[in-house]
Amino acid sequence: MAMLKKPALLLSAFATVVSAGQVFANAELLKLQEDPNLWVMPNGNYSSTRFSALDQINTSNAKDLKVAWTFSTGVLRGHEGGPLVMNDVMYVHTPFPNKVFALDLNNDGKIIWKYEPRQDPSVIPVMCCDTVNRGLAYGDGKIFLYQADTTLVALDAKTGEKLWSVVNGDPSKGATGTAAPMVVKDKVYVGISGGEFGVRGYLTAYNIADGKMVWRGYSMGPDSDTLMDPEKTTHLGQPVGKDSGTATWEGDQWKIGGGTTWGWYSYDPNLNLVYYGSGNPSTWNPSQRPGDNRWSMTIWARDADTGMAKWVYQMTPHDEWDYDGINEMILVDKEIKGQPRKALVHFDRNGFGYTLDRVTGELLVAEKFDPAVNWATHVDMETGRPQVVPEFSTAHNGEDVNTTGICPAALGTKDQQPSAYSPRTGLFYVPTNHVCMDYEPFRVAYTAGQPYVGATLTMYPAPGGDHLGNFIAWDADQGKIVWSIPEQFSVWSGALATAGDVVFYGTLEGYLKAVDAKTGKELYKFKTPSGIIGNINTYTHKGKQYVAVLSGLGGWAGIGMAAGLTEPTAGLGAVGAYASLSDYTQLGGQLTVFELPN
Amino acid sequence: MAMLKKPALLLSAFATVVSAGQVFANAELLKLQEDPNLWVMPNGNYSSTRFSALDQINTSNAKDLKVAWTFSTGVLRGHEGGPLVMNDVMYVHTPFPNKVFALDLNNDGKIIWKYEPRQDPSVIPVMCCDTVNRGLAYGDGKIFLYQADTTLVALDAKTGEKLWSVVNGDPSKGATGTAAPMVVKDKVYVGISGGEFGVRGYLTAYNIADGKMVWRGYSMGPDSDTLMDPEKTTHLGQPVGKDSGTATWEGDQWKIGGGTTWGWYSYDPNLNLVYYGSGNPSTWNPSQRPGDNRWSMTIWARDADTGMAKWVYQMTPHDEWDYDGINEMILVDKEIKGQPRKALVHFDRNGFGYTLDRVTGELLVAEKFDPAVNWATHVDMETGRPQVVPEFSTAHNGEDVNTTGICPAALGTKDQQPSAYSPRTGLFYVPTNHVCMDYEPFRVAYTAGQPYVGATLTMYPAPGGDHLGNFIAWDADQGKIVWSIPEQFSVWSGALATAGDVVFYGTLEGYLKAVDAKTGKELYKFKTPSGIIGNINTYTHKGKQYVAVLSGLGGWAGIGMAAGLTEPTAGLGAVGAYASLSDYTQLGGQLTVFELPN
Repeated sequence: MAMLKKPALLLSAFATVVSAGQVFANAELLKLQEDPNLWVMPNGNYSSTRFSALDQINTSNAKDLKVAWTFSTGVLRGHEGGPLVMNDVMYVHTPFPNKVFALDLNNDGKIIWKYEPRQDPSVIPVMCCDTVNRGLAYGDGKIFLYQADTTLVALDAKTGEKLWSVVNGDPSKGATGTAAPMVVKDKVYVGISGGEFGVRGYLTAYNIADGKMVWRGYSMGPDSDTLMDPEKTTHLGQPVGKDSGTATWEGDQWKIGGGTTWGWYSYDPNLNLVYYGSGNPSTWNPSQRPGDNRWSMTIWARDADTGMAKWVYQMTPHDEWDYDGINEMILVDKEIKGQPRKALVHFDRNGFGYTLDRVTGELLVAEKFDPAVNWATHVDMETGRPQVVPEFSTAHNGEDVNTTGICPAALGTKDQQPSAYSPRTGLFYVPTNHVCMDYEPFRVAYTAGQPYVGATLTMYPAPGGDHLGNFIAWDADQGKIVWSIPEQFSVWSGALATAGDVVFYGTLEGYLKAVDAKTGKELYKFKTPSGIIGNINTYTHKGKQYVAVLSGLGGWAGIGMAAGLTEPTAGLGAVGAYASLSDYTQLGGQLTVFELPN
Repeated sequence: MAMLKKPALLLSAFATVVSAGQVFANAELLKLQEDPNLWVMPNGNYSSTRFSALDQINTSNAKDLKVAWTFSTGVLRGHEGGPLVMNDVMYVHTPFPNKVFALDLNNDGKIIWKYEPRQDPSVIPVMCCDTVNRGLAYGDGKIFLYQADTTLVALDAKTGEKLWSVVNGDPSKGATGTAAPMVVKDKVYVGISGGEFGVRGYLTAYNIADGKMVWRGYSMGPDSDTLMDPEKTTHLGQPVGKDSGTATWEGDQWKIGGGTTWGWYSYDPNLNLVYYGSGNPSTWNPSQRPGDNRWSMTIWARDADTGMAKWVYQMTPHDEWDYDGINEMILVDKEIKGQPRKALVHFDRNGFGYTLDRVTGELLVAEKFDPAVNWATHVDMETGRPQVVPEFSTAHNGEDVNTTGICPAALGTKDQQPSAYSPRTGLFYVPTNHVCMDYEPFRVAYTAGQPYVGATLTMYPAPGGDHLGNFIAWDADQGKIVWSIPEQFSVWSGALATAGDVVFYGTLEGYLKAVDAKTGKELYKFKTPSGIIGNINTYTHKGKQYVAVLSGLGGWAGIGMAAGLTEPTAGLGAVGAYASLSDYTQLGGQLTVFELPN
């Protein structure tokens, strides 16, 4: 494991070992991710726009959509993420035990190969929010699977043969794998889950050829761990200074400080920067960790080759509500406040929709994307700090005090379910939660591998309504909601925007919905077998456009049913508000593929 | 428990306790089962024709079928049987743990109520052929569920409230419940599974009002157990004689003699007779039970009120191959051999398609419905006995000798998957297996609750072909196949025939298929999420015809995958021939509902 202090040197060292195949991997993937006929990355492309240039399905004919074929994964519980598609093959993953199926699109999904890892089931209770997995990555002829037990596996995309594997963390200490990896050039990046077990987060780059670790950048710790340059790495334009990843922590708390990296990764090939967010500081009890707890709750821009941090932006210093900052970073080139920008747009758990300059990390816009958000009045655009309302400050109210009526709840105005962006409308399509909470922090002692949560909470619909979610269209320049569709439950599925001006999303009751990108008008809905927490994708096969989605209730919102909790308010992050979900749907694990009639 | 010896007396006693509500139940159900807009019995009606007078879906438009909505049951493994439909509600059952869902047809299957029994999972390993359940019965405002643990439960059809329950057998001795009950007048009939555990079979009638047992008729034992009258009960027109249920057994072997009753029940309201078949004699080693082993492997006609046997016909005396006689009895009024008959048509595991006079039990036709059948040359129409080919007689070859090349295999030319009959074509539509076997009997000692099998076997495709199944159209008068569609795997789903001249069935790979009733020409196919071993039904909702089927691989053919056997040839009734199923589909548990476009 190399903790890089001299990136320039290492870069040159790296250059000497690049093989022709590795360079090709980069060029190939850069090209593939631009091909609308394929779906080679979890969020469609390096920019994570979840936009497809396909337009066969449009606002006029979407009403005629029908199911083309279906596939049961043979696994129940929460199916997050979505399949990859290329070369007439669809690659489908499952929650634990993390099976992978290569399905033949020329034969209604006949199984070409399957990979069924054997994992120690003791990892299941260590997974905070269901046994989810957010998908696969492709690169250099390989399919990369990141297992619950943190094993990163490279499979031959043609045969399913295991080419190599490497272990990225220690489940016995609470580290687990849930994120989809990302391949850039000759590396595959993968994060770590386990913020509720005191895992200190990191992003790691492995060589796609053999699984050797190239770099690892922690979310906190000394500069050698965080891969920060005190002078060159900036926060809102200012150098972060020496060991900024320990300076705002008391004692050694940073060593079990959280900031895990279980969300999505984006990449700008021109800037050669990788973008992602870090999660909550550990524990959830803010009184146990005074200070800003840098760099939890932070947007990161790292050099793709060296891992060195170019800039960071901490959205929620000293978190008091579990507002993980791991949601997707959408990279768009767009006029913001009258000026063309290489922008990064991010909808955070904390309820603010951020627009930043992704070159510099400059904060351009930070506005609430749900009017219910009340924990902060606004974000100070100078300091970047949210202005916390004392009434809703669990730190201010102190340990063993139940702070009530905080909006959003811990699962955020949006969780990991990724948004979409259409360059045709200039709008972002955001699946959201409309949920508030009561939050009571308590003192907790750290024991390796044991839950290190330090708060109890209850979630319920936001005041003045009886719905738990909205699907919204967002103007990232103005920081305003353009239209909003109320949904009975949280919208926990990833959205898809298309050049047919149709936007797709799924609901926890199990509906796939297609709406007009301009107006939000519902064009089509279909009740899939189970609740949808998967992400919609689209592709062509033999020249025809298809839309695919995984059903399978679970995830944080569905954990009550997924884990078979008999007490609707039991378990981590009590989800009693979702108990009535079982009146609509049951557990499942199915792929549904849609098409227009011939 | 009343062992009836004087049925006439008891009949009059019964008449005095009939309540108005109970009489209504009879009249209501008689009417409901004739209404093509509903599906109130597992096989559509008392005659088990699985024919629907609906004709909106026809041979011209079946190609346009599409999926209307879907529902995941949240349970994996084999989903046999199919849902009931009435009053805008669909009642869906699952394999163990035998959940029941009442789904709102006015709301894409929103769950009106669900019943989730808690059963001791120790029953699972006692179930020979997957954790299947073949469906629910309706009567008198109640839904009847027969659980794996043999508990018969009456649920309020409107609310799901449990009204009463009664235990029908002892799982600790190998008795389990898999069959769908049948309601006639004020009684609900239910059988018993466990022939591989030496369970002595019986059919029991319970009062639908309170679950009190009314009568129980055993498959073997003294007349007081079998409810036979030595003079009046006939076998091929001859009185069976005194204690015919013990006379062809050596010693007390009949007490653990099998003849279980896990198939389907039919009813003729005019004759007031209930028809069903009994299963294999125990053990599978014929040398341990010399004699005809009456009345295993027998078609029964019992008085619906008293249980007294009117006639019996033993198809496979002294079984040597596990050719259970439990398959459905289809009651049709039809010209047979030039004479109008109240006929009973039955496609037996032993590979013969039988036509009998259901009034008298006279044998009219007995012909092979798969040319591969080789264990007997023919059925002697005088004696009703199959003429066994010594080469394929496992009794003749003796214990510890592997008799090879027997056709059909133990799972029969057809297993429980019910056939359909169309009065429009006069043809029967039969889902079949095309499988042969090697069979080696061995001596086994009886221990209560332990497998009492006494044979090992291997199954493989019938010679000269590479397919394991056929879907055939059968002329029950001529005893001839009219057309036959080869299928890669056994056709383990129940068929549906409609007045639109469309016949439906499902395949183990997961296809729902619609074919022309006259020609067998494929009109439509759709890949459902998992393998289909469920039975297709049809109904109308708001005037529109729908077709529904459960997917969920399992059952005997799919036991390898369902039970997660890592060794494809391991387990009871080795099913190695089906190992490649996992290249096509995975476990599942989903309802798929089809419709024509608006």
